[in-house]
Amino acid sequence: MRILPWVIETDGDAGEGREFRESIFSLGNGYMGTRGFRPEQPGEHMAWRSTFIAGFFEYIRPGITDMVNQPDFSSAELRLNGAPVTELELRGRRQRLHMDCALAEWEYSVPMGGGAVHVRVEKFLSMANRHTAAMRFTLRAEGAAADCSLSLGLDGAVRNLPIADNQMQENTEFARIWGEVRAEATAAGGRLHASTSVSSRATAMAFAARCTGEAERSDELRGEYVGSRFDIHLRPGESAAVEKLVSVACFRDGAEPDALAGEALDYARQRGFEGMLEDTRRAWAGIWRDVDIELTGCDEWQGALRYNILQLVQSAPEGDGRASIGARGLTHGRYKGCYFWDADIFMLPMFACMRPRAARSLLEYRYNTLGDAVESARRFSAKGARYSWMSADTGFEQCETWDTGCCEVHITADVAYAIGAYCAQTGDVEFLRDCGCEMLVQTARYWTDRFSYCPEEDRYHLLFVKGPDEYCGVTSDDFYSVRMAAHNLRLAAEAVELVKSRFPQSWERLEARLGVCPGEAESWLELAGKTAQLYDGERGLWLQDATFEYLEPLDIKAHKTGDVPLYRSISFDRLQRYKVLKQPAVLMYMALMPGEFSRDELRRAWDYYEPKTLHDSTLSYGIHALLAARLGLEDRAVSYFEKSLFLDLRDVMSNTGSEGVHTASLGATWQAMVFGFCGLSQRGGRPVCEPNLPARVDSVKFHLRCHGRRYRVEISHERVEITEV
Amino acid sequence: MRILPWVIETDGDAGEGREFRESIFSLGNGYMGTRGFRPEQPGEHMAWRSTFIAGFFEYIRPGITDMVNQPDFSSAELRLNGAPVTELELRGRRQRLHMDCALAEWEYSVPMGGGAVHVRVEKFLSMANRHTAAMRFTLRAEGAAADCSLSLGLDGAVRNLPIADNQMQENTEFARIWGEVRAEATAAGGRLHASTSVSSRATAMAFAARCTGEAERSDELRGEYVGSRFDIHLRPGESAAVEKLVSVACFRDGAEPDALAGEALDYARQRGFEGMLEDTRRAWAGIWRDVDIELTGCDEWQGALRYNILQLVQSAPEGDGRASIGARGLTHGRYKGCYFWDADIFMLPMFACMRPRAARSLLEYRYNTLGDAVESARRFSAKGARYSWMSADTGFEQCETWDTGCCEVHITADVAYAIGAYCAQTGDVEFLRDCGCEMLVQTARYWTDRFSYCPEEDRYHLLFVKGPDEYCGVTSDDFYSVRMAAHNLRLAAEAVELVKSRFPQSWERLEARLGVCPGEAESWLELAGKTAQLYDGERGLWLQDATFEYLEPLDIKAHKTGDVPLYRSISFDRLQRYKVLKQPAVLMYMALMPGEFSRDELRRAWDYYEPKTLHDSTLSYGIHALLAARLGLEDRAVSYFEKSLFLDLRDVMSNTGSEGVHTASLGATWQAMVFGFCGLSQRGGRPVCEPNLPARVDSVKFHLRCHGRRYRVEISHERVEITEV
Repeated sequence: MRILPWVIETDGDAGEGREFRESIFSLGNGYMGTRGFRPEQPGEHMAWRSTFIAGFFEYIRPGITDMVNQPDFSSAELRLNGAPVTELELRGRRQRLHMDCALAEWEYSVPMGGGAVHVRVEKFLSMANRHTAAMRFTLRAEGAAADCSLSLGLDGAVRNLPIADNQMQENTEFARIWGEVRAEATAAGGRLHASTSVSSRATAMAFAARCTGEAERSDELRGEYVGSRFDIHLRPGESAAVEKLVSVACFRDGAEPDALAGEALDYARQRGFEGMLEDTRRAWAGIWRDVDIELTGCDEWQGALRYNILQLVQSAPEGDGRASIGARGLTHGRYKGCYFWDADIFMLPMFACMRPRAARSLLEYRYNTLGDAVESARRFSAKGARYSWMSADTGFEQCETWDTGCCEVHITADVAYAIGAYCAQTGDVEFLRDCGCEMLVQTARYWTDRFSYCPEEDRYHLLFVKGPDEYCGVTSDDFYSVRMAAHNLRLAAEAVELVKSRFPQSWERLEARLGVCPGEAESWLELAGKTAQLYDGERGLWLQDATFEYLEPLDIKAHKTGDVPLYRSISFDRLQRYKVLKQPAVLMYMALMPGEFSRDELRRAWDYYEPKTLHDSTLSYGIHALLAARLGLEDRAVSYFEKSLFLDLRDVMSNTGSEGVHTASLGATWQAMVFGFCGLSQRGGRPVCEPNLPARVDSVKFHLRCHGRRYRVEISHERVEITEV
Repeated sequence: MRILPWVIETDGDAGEGREFRESIFSLGNGYMGTRGFRPEQPGEHMAWRSTFIAGFFEYIRPGITDMVNQPDFSSAELRLNGAPVTELELRGRRQRLHMDCALAEWEYSVPMGGGAVHVRVEKFLSMANRHTAAMRFTLRAEGAAADCSLSLGLDGAVRNLPIADNQMQENTEFARIWGEVRAEATAAGGRLHASTSVSSRATAMAFAARCTGEAERSDELRGEYVGSRFDIHLRPGESAAVEKLVSVACFRDGAEPDALAGEALDYARQRGFEGMLEDTRRAWAGIWRDVDIELTGCDEWQGALRYNILQLVQSAPEGDGRASIGARGLTHGRYKGCYFWDADIFMLPMFACMRPRAARSLLEYRYNTLGDAVESARRFSAKGARYSWMSADTGFEQCETWDTGCCEVHITADVAYAIGAYCAQTGDVEFLRDCGCEMLVQTARYWTDRFSYCPEEDRYHLLFVKGPDEYCGVTSDDFYSVRMAAHNLRLAAEAVELVKSRFPQSWERLEARLGVCPGEAESWLELAGKTAQLYDGERGLWLQDATFEYLEPLDIKAHKTGDVPLYRSISFDRLQRYKVLKQPAVLMYMALMPGEFSRDELRRAWDYYEPKTLHDSTLSYGIHALLAARLGLEDRAVSYFEKSLFLDLRDVMSNTGSEGVHTASLGATWQAMVFGFCGLSQRGGRPVCEPNLPARVDSVKFHLRCHGRRYRVEISHERVEITEV
């Protein structure tokens, strides 16, 4: 995998697995995403040819959904002189991802008789009309004539991959989600209508195909497949290009997905491949103006950093408040496509700083599922709103293991934190008035019920929880969870104060609707002030939780090989009894709340916890890089940063192929660069930078938005320049 | 429900639900069990017509099994003058369970023209040949002639009930477990061969039917059903009886279940209904000689106590070491038919005292799954053997929720306790030599790995466990689990000592096979002596666990209505934070180990925990009755005993109908009577009794076995007589 400033390139033979390349070359436009498989190469199983629509889930069991693998609009079959290209020898294979416009490109030559056929495939999802995508197949006969046959179509015979979420059992079932699939040929190509079997959720697709050269064209229709076949005779030196233009719409877009898909196809046919690409290039140029970070001095970092940003943008359903970004974005169905704290804590900061509209969409998703969170709280016999550890198109719990689904309660405070961080960055008080304040009130109420009061100590304990260090077992007074809950309570009190004073009429309505009692906000502050936090005065150390100090020390070096997570070789039941962390916990909170700790406090926590941290979660490296940068530990910062930066591109966890791109790590990489190396924070609504730039980077340049204003930031070892633009 | 000394009787109209009656009238002979539905009354769903074979499970998901609802051998359809009896008015309904021979009987009259048809149905499972069962339908025309048509057959179109084990989601799926079902008519009746779809596990059934009077007979064969139809014209005053004799065999019995079912049917046909009943009556008489407890002064207690014992015996796979007794025996598929500590701790004592062979079978089941327990330990990264909270035909974990399946580790010590209790009662050192010692060594090894050493305290902590009070959350140093584990460790050391000295050659082989290290047994004793146990010296109180004292007090009276468990209205997540117990925990250990605590210690624990106990588990009442009796709290003892004694007969938990008979409660009832009221224990291998007989019982008489000898025990308020017989 060669990482160039604007291109990711491979010849596909560097020992990389095919699944790995397919994850890396995943494309997305926020509305939909598709794995980076070569269209004319069939998957080992149709479930691996994955295409997802953001927020498109379907029930697979009562109450439990999976993200639905959509009908395959990339379907292609190429025969050369009668032989399927899959059975022929390919030479000079080259594959590129052009990051400026998110275009994937494959090239290879197939020796044929005395000559060869050169094949080039290009594919992109439109960023200008997100319901469309385009592919172009360019065939050139070199040295000899060739008979080419290219079938392009829509294929509804897809399945979902087995779900691997249960710690106690394996699953090998390729579930069929689709019920009825209707495919039909049209003058331009074909169309397909598929409907899921449980909830009748529909997807409509259409395609048009045309050939630049002379070709015999025929329709193909069989079962759940509709296609067009082009038979092309190429004389030596001749070439032909076949364009396949695709449109996609679904039940989420309105009542008539077929009509919507038809309209979108009209756009595609009007503009053609080149026109669509021009539009998409323009759209991406606008996005890159917002999100690009220019590094000088290190091309590989530059390319990889852009890759991290690109994949985040590709996954973000900007403008759609009914979807968020899953733990693998739209690049894989792992974790049933669900949304975790990953979105609120790890990814949102980049959007809040660079694409506030996209950040707001992520929070709107939380607001749109607030009703479900209130109902979830009720089911847990609690007041207020309880967000679910894993959620999907509804806010109801999709996590099927008790210890996380029931105990990892910090998710509720994470959502509150994200509201606070977004509002602090953007100054978007209207959001606070219309959505944020209500969420903060309801989440604060949850905490009043979730803490247990101990009269002897006059303290509130948080019992039976799991913190971000998921190897902590089920424990009590987890530092991260307790402090985040206290932050949530304080944010709620502040929000009430702000809305009350700035928008008194809105507050009156909200107060009545939520039945806010007099003194309720004061009770939140009282609780926040009396939460139990474990501090070892002798060592000047914040303790992770009530059980951590009782755990058995582990010689990590003797057990962990490379970056392979220990949970692959040691059971969770055993791991929870070792004094090791899966990922930062106390340090995680310190990363989010730098203002609350002195540098010495942070350093002591780092010295105690960092050597015990296994980094068995991809959420770990970027946060450690950020903290190491803040602490001025350049070597550690660079080494952690590279793990995070290249996490997928170098397959650090050995699971990018089998699970997709790790979206939280993309966000953590961004935070390590911007909050860590560049030292960005804000004071009084204006950005400030106290950089900790590593030697290998000469300078960093980016734009950001803060309280409605746009700034250009330029940082070098010599100076920091922040200019409003 | 009228409870007579040897008969349970109902007219079926006392507001009881039909499902409730079907549970109460369940029949079993250890090999198989069938719910007490009236044969000629179809279930609302075929899944409710349940017949189970002990130990017959099949996979429903990878690694997870369900107890299989067998083809319905009770299938019957009765038409009178052309109308299905289900659509006719039934008068004088009467239903009886004759406990002397476990025969169920139904009677009713159907008004017909000027007269009526009187119907009587009898059904029993043979205790003499456990592969057989018999039914008899007696029809009598009264006052008018009647045309009767009776179809009797075998029906393979059965399904399993939905599984309700997941706390986080509902399930409504009636699973079809059977793949191929072949039914065919024979000269005598018919036969059926069914094979499960995943593992091809086969059941073979055969039936013969004959009519005493004049009848026209025809074969019926449709799909998965084979039957014989009898058309009978009864003149006024005439009667006819139709016998249906059934045989059952399955893959567990050998390679040729069809042949085995054929042989069993030969027996049935030779003996006929009356002959089979005679054989069964004789077999039951032998059993009752061992297990009966005669009470004078209280007929209702007498009948109910016999019912408790009857259901235990009906469920016990005596002589079959590859099955145990599930939490609902063979009366319902609840909990997927799985085996819990219920068998080892609650049911085994009765068998150890009265039917040692049946007790040994239960322990052989644990020995036969020891290999799976060793493999389970390995999967949990632990040494030795780890028994599963729920097990089935294998010893692998069938519990699908983390908090119980992973954390309720006391099950391993419960198995060890049962070995100790069985050997102490029977003096069966051969069992210790051949099975028990190996199990004790391997379970002891598990504990050496499961405790965490704290050097500061020089104590071993048991972290992240759930105790018998399942509302305790996931906690540490649960008193019951810690003390039971210490007992397990000591039992292992004692067993090694005993086998080493009594059977040196056996020990040598075992030592070599298990790789027992020098000093290993001493290390168990060292660990046992240094386990962390929480004691409040000021209050003289053993504390339940590390979190109990932090929980929020709850006004139980304000929340709990009648006997309905609180988990029906409050979530587990909330319940775990209330200072309440689902069932005894500290007291549970004290019940099992009376010798380790002074009466004052017990009394203080009672005074503290009993008022906080919700009895939301059916395992609770009997144990409280036992302890109250020991403490001389007669009123409490009687009131708890009646809850346990009538738990199913009076539907105390409102779920006997929907879930079946609560087998652990049956055993706890027995323990409350024998260990509590009769005060039975043993000294030096001989039984002693220190009774706490309540006023309402005049005398108790029973037989028991101890160290190979048989004793008659007679207890009254005046005297205790224990005589070897």
